[in-house]
Amino acid sequence: MSKVVVDISMSLDGYVAGPEVGPEQGLGVNGEAIHDWCVGPGRSPADEAILAEAFERSGAVVMGRNTFDVVDGPDGWNDEMGYGADVDPTHQPPVVVVTHAVPEAVRLVEQFHFATGGVADAVARARELCPRGKDVVVMGGASVIDQGLAAGLVDEMIVHVSPVLLGAGTRLFAAAGAVRLEQVGVLETRAATHVTYRVGPA
Amino acid sequence: MSKVVVDISMSLDGYVAGPEVGPEQGLGVNGEAIHDWCVGPGRSPADEAILAEAFERSGAVVMGRNTFDVVDGPDGWNDEMGYGADVDPTHQPPVVVVTHAVPEAVRLVEQFHFATGGVADAVARARELCPRGKDVVVMGGASVIDQGLAAGLVDEMIVHVSPVLLGAGTRLFAAAGAVRLEQVGVLETRAATHVTYRVGPA
Repeated sequence: MSKVVVDISMSLDGYVAGPEVGPEQGLGVNGEAIHDWCVGPGRSPADEAILAEAFERSGAVVMGRNTFDVVDGPDGWNDEMGYGADVDPTHQPPVVVVTHAVPEAVRLVEQFHFATGGVADAVARARELCPRGKDVVVMGGASVIDQGLAAGLVDEMIVHVSPVLLGAGTRLFAAAGAVRLEQVGVLETRAATHVTYRVGPA
Repeated sequence: MSKVVVDISMSLDGYVAGPEVGPEQGLGVNGEAIHDWCVGPGRSPADEAILAEAFERSGAVVMGRNTFDVVDGPDGWNDEMGYGADVDPTHQPPVVVVTHAVPEAVRLVEQFHFATGGVADAVARARELCPRGKDVVVMGGASVIDQGLAAGLVDEMIVHVSPVLLGAGTRLFAAAGAVRLEQVGVLETRAATHVTYRVGPA
């Protein structure tokens, strides 16, 4: 069965986005610093190898509705900018969106699926869409990740810890509860510390 | 002039102690998991080298009053258990405590000094007590570290990130504000990821 892997960048003080997040400012105020290692000037060949390996493993993606509204928006994903677009633009894994209501209009209609039964439903749908030998990747936002951790749905977690304190914004793990982790690998690049955890028994 | 170095262990979700901290439970409920790398069964020879190097650098220590009340309490520091006690029990650096009022009774009277003018006053006192070539170490708690960061008093920060989500407790960085950091080194041991940051201009 596919592994369910959380893959997320956060500031050292635990934020995945700065304050005032919205469709036109998906990362919030100063949120770019969190992603400097992957989309900013801090990106290095070692970071590119991490991105390429993560993309290679991805058989299906789970995201929340707010994240979807950003990536499917007019300034969102395209052939040059999106999940794995600069690694292999010909292959885009299916994405399952956790939402209360299926949106009326979808720009990237072939890529997106909608699950209205919560995070567990979305993960189950993503497993069905995921090719054998690949992972289901939970990419965020924070609320979907926290719900997945709290429900014991996550097998592994890769956290890219960026060297910045934001002081405000959207905090990861605020609703995940107490979770035991096993640290299974650490990679250092110039603009982040990339830590892989196995998620322990609840 | 001595460098001012924050040295602190935190859970991946940013807690330096679990809930219900008090003199008899200095790390709070489940807080031991945060310090498994240094005082628990997770401690390895690599962790011991990190501890020994940190202790070797320390010329003076700054701590908050709540931390003092734990370490000077009946179950607190002694020849076997305390700052650097298992590295070199013959040498204990002076400690400056940030407090509103000097305590009436002090058990470890030779080691402790009291600063009633806030964190800046405590750091200044610690600099005076710190031998040339050694560092002033701000060991916590979270409030003293946050105040030091917010006031621009910190030059360097070593954060030991432990593989656990606590979900509740005393959170580090909650009052530090936005701070730019430069990641200058990462060490992986079995029970923690040890990251050193240079603290950027405010």
